[in-house]
Amino acid sequence: MIPEDLIKQIAFIKEIDKLKYIERQTRLLNSNRRENDAEHSWHLAMMAIVLQQHANEEVDVLKVVKMVLIHDIVEIDAGDTFIYDSLKSHDNTEEERLAAKRIFGILPKEQAEEFTAIWEEFELGESMEAKFARTMDRLEPLLQNYSNNGGTWNMPGVTYEKVYAKKSVMKYGSSSIWDYAEGLIQDAVEKGILKKS
Amino acid sequence: MIPEDLIKQIAFIKEIDKLKYIERQTRLLNSNRRENDAEHSWHLAMMAIVLQQHANEEVDVLKVVKMVLIHDIVEIDAGDTFIYDSLKSHDNTEEERLAAKRIFGILPKEQAEEFTAIWEEFELGESMEAKFARTMDRLEPLLQNYSNNGGTWNMPGVTYEKVYAKKSVMKYGSSSIWDYAEGLIQDAVEKGILKKS
Repeated sequence: MIPEDLIKQIAFIKEIDKLKYIERQTRLLNSNRRENDAEHSWHLAMMAIVLQQHANEEVDVLKVVKMVLIHDIVEIDAGDTFIYDSLKSHDNTEEERLAAKRIFGILPKEQAEEFTAIWEEFELGESMEAKFARTMDRLEPLLQNYSNNGGTWNMPGVTYEKVYAKKSVMKYGSSSIWDYAEGLIQDAVEKGILKKS
Repeated sequence: MIPEDLIKQIAFIKEIDKLKYIERQTRLLNSNRRENDAEHSWHLAMMAIVLQQHANEEVDVLKVVKMVLIHDIVEIDAGDTFIYDSLKSHDNTEEERLAAKRIFGILPKEQAEEFTAIWEEFELGESMEAKFARTMDRLEPLLQNYSNNGGTWNMPGVTYEKVYAKKSVMKYGSSSIWDYAEGLIQDAVEKGILKKS
């Protein structure tokens, strides 16, 4: 007999395959091809492992890795929201809450609760793990846009001031990574690939 | 001043973006679109976290997650090898060793050594973590092929006997997951999507 937990877990594993179809606005490094959420999540997990020494305080790396691996799963139902889209809220929308309930709810009860709690902790952004995970989530598209002559910074309504404001939360996760990122942003302005309003 | 370690780590993070371009033979669930190594690695990491309770012995989950996140990075230089390709060896080829040396060597020395050791442990397949990681790596394409009317099982030279032999190593990582997988393989034969030689 196959354990009931395993049957639920396999159903969840099949369901989240859909994350590979959710396209982000940003494109791969030096590329025209848009990134999908699964690739993005893999990259953030690698970044969290590689960069952990730079967190402002020691972090539980496994928890950060879990956060970044699952942080976009709700987009299977709710879709990707562009970070500089001023019409749509980036906070926990009702749509995302319903998505978390449905998708994590495929898992056995205890795991569903654990995943929901980790996702909520990430969204809340208050724990050291959530702050560091957020730093990873802001750094990756910065590297991508910088390599792509500005990338999504060329979209209507995106300015240096908005980018700087969105990126500056990185400092709460890692002051040294933020120092690096700030330098890259200033450099992008000098190069003319990120414009002041 | 940006720490020297951080500069090396960012260079590594940029380099591994290339994993998103390495295509596997298997296709996404119920799909014609081939999976890339970054998506595959993300999925295995999720599987390791979700399925950890089924490991034959307790595993260090963070280590398993690191293994599956990095296990295909050498393919950036060495390319993907189809598991049922009888002409090319699947063991640690010289090409893969050189790739590990070059790519992990971008990192600070201590991290380069850690990543190389984890990759070698996975390839060797002897520790409980390596066995469980291997179980994940065998399970994902099984789910994909089953959902795609056989998928790569329809390629020349692929038979039930070969598939069964390659998949049966799953039992060393998890006997309950292997029970499930074995049932799926027998079911695939009955459905005619996997043929005996």
